[in-house]
Amino acid sequence: MEQLSARNILKGTIKEVNKGPIGAEVTIELSGGIELTSFITKASAERLGLKEGVEAYAVIKATSVMIGKD
Amino acid sequence: MEQLSARNILKGTIKEVNKGPIGAEVTIELSGGIELTSFITKASAERLGLKEGVEAYAVIKATSVMIGKD
Amino acid sequence: MEQLSARNILKGTIKEVNKGPIGAEVTIELSGGIELTSFITKASAERLGLKEGVEAYAVIKATSVMIGKD
Amino acid sequence: MEQLSARNILKGTIKEVNKGPIGAEVTIELSGGIELTSFITKASAERLGLKEGVEAYAVIKATSVMIGKD
Amino acid sequence: MEQLSARNILKGTIKEVNKGPIGAEVTIELSGGIELTSFITKASAERLGLKEGVEAYAVIKATSVMIGKD
Amino acid sequence: MEQLSARNILKGTIKEVNKGPIGAEVTIELSGGIELTSFITKASAERLGLKEGVEAYAVIKATSVMIGKD
Repeated sequence: MEQLSARNILKGTIKEVNKGPIGAEVTIELSGGIELTSFITKASAERLGLKEGVEAYAVIKATSVMIGKD
Repeated sequence: MEQLSARNILKGTIKEVNKGPIGAEVTIELSGGIELTSFITKASAERLGLKEGVEAYAVIKATSVMIGKD
Repeated sequence: MEQLSARNILKGTIKEVNKGPIGAEVTIELSGGIELTSFITKASAERLGLKEGVEAYAVIKATSVMIGKD
Repeated sequence: MEQLSARNILKGTIKEVNKGPIGAEVTIELSGGIELTSFITKASAERLGLKEGVEAYAVIKATSVMIGKD
Repeated sequence: MEQLSARNILKGTIKEVNKGPIGAEVTIELSGGIELTSFITKASAERLGLKEGVEAYAVIKATSVMIGKD
Repeated sequence: MEQLSARNILKGTIKEVNKGPIGAEVTIELSGGIELTSFITKASAERLGLKEGVEAYAVIKATSVMIGKD
């Protein structure tokens, strides 16, 4: 799959993977030091071989992004 | 509301707002030049006064973030 | 952050927090006795200090709300 | 379909339906005067015959509910 | 509830239920051998009595479906 | 991007694309005649060149899949 409708595909490096019995919490560091946290299944974290230092992407559908303001 | 369970709250500046009759597509530029696109209702875009140059946040729940790999 | 594009921000009181190793199930009681259940990360439940009796809000993006009919 | 895994199924009455060419914004009033706004497709709003006064349910998966705090 | 705005309601048979302390991973096999995996709360999996062989539906809101291309 | 954490990646053929000013409703037919409907931005539908007959994938995160029962 070379293209995806998701509007937000951001390159980064996995910083931490914290696995539970079903879910996993994955932190990815984007350029500029921005960190994003993701909740995926443990099965996906293992299938993709996610661990600290692995290059990866955060992928986010536009309908899932909210906007806040001060 | 001073705190939110959403794990990803990223500061940036609105770059573009494209409104339809119900929905709106909002582009926000984070530090380091990273851009995120959001789909929200037009009513929210207007209530928050979103337009180019406004300081804002992209807010994303961790369950909405996927991870990709090359 | 004083404003959020999410259309649904509902005031209530935390009724129960059930934590697993990664996720947490949080029940919030709105006025009129309506209860909502949320799945967030355990880290967020702890960062916000969620426990029975705490005043809180349920926050829901309009794109996540479905409509049913009898 | 008599049962649904979605944890939040809230009875109410449709208060307003605002249709665009593809999407529709539906406001439902729950008991106690709580209002929820939903974004669904126009096709669904028409298939369900949603209009002011129709009894309906707001249906929300727990993974879509965030928690905020003052 | 006899009708739901969710555009995708697909009949199948539960193939596997894997429960953690809070979440559960449910695999459902649709006709033609297509499998879908769902993450729901353990409480919902138990309330619906989900286990191998049970007839069920996968229900997906259109805003949650992305499109990919080779 | 060769791998994606999303648990559900289903091959099919685009059957219909219905574009509005911001959003687009895309119907994809999977093998066995199963149809899925997706709401994405018009910009994504155009960037991917989606139109009737194009081979594509429906991509769905497990946390977005609910389970129903009769």
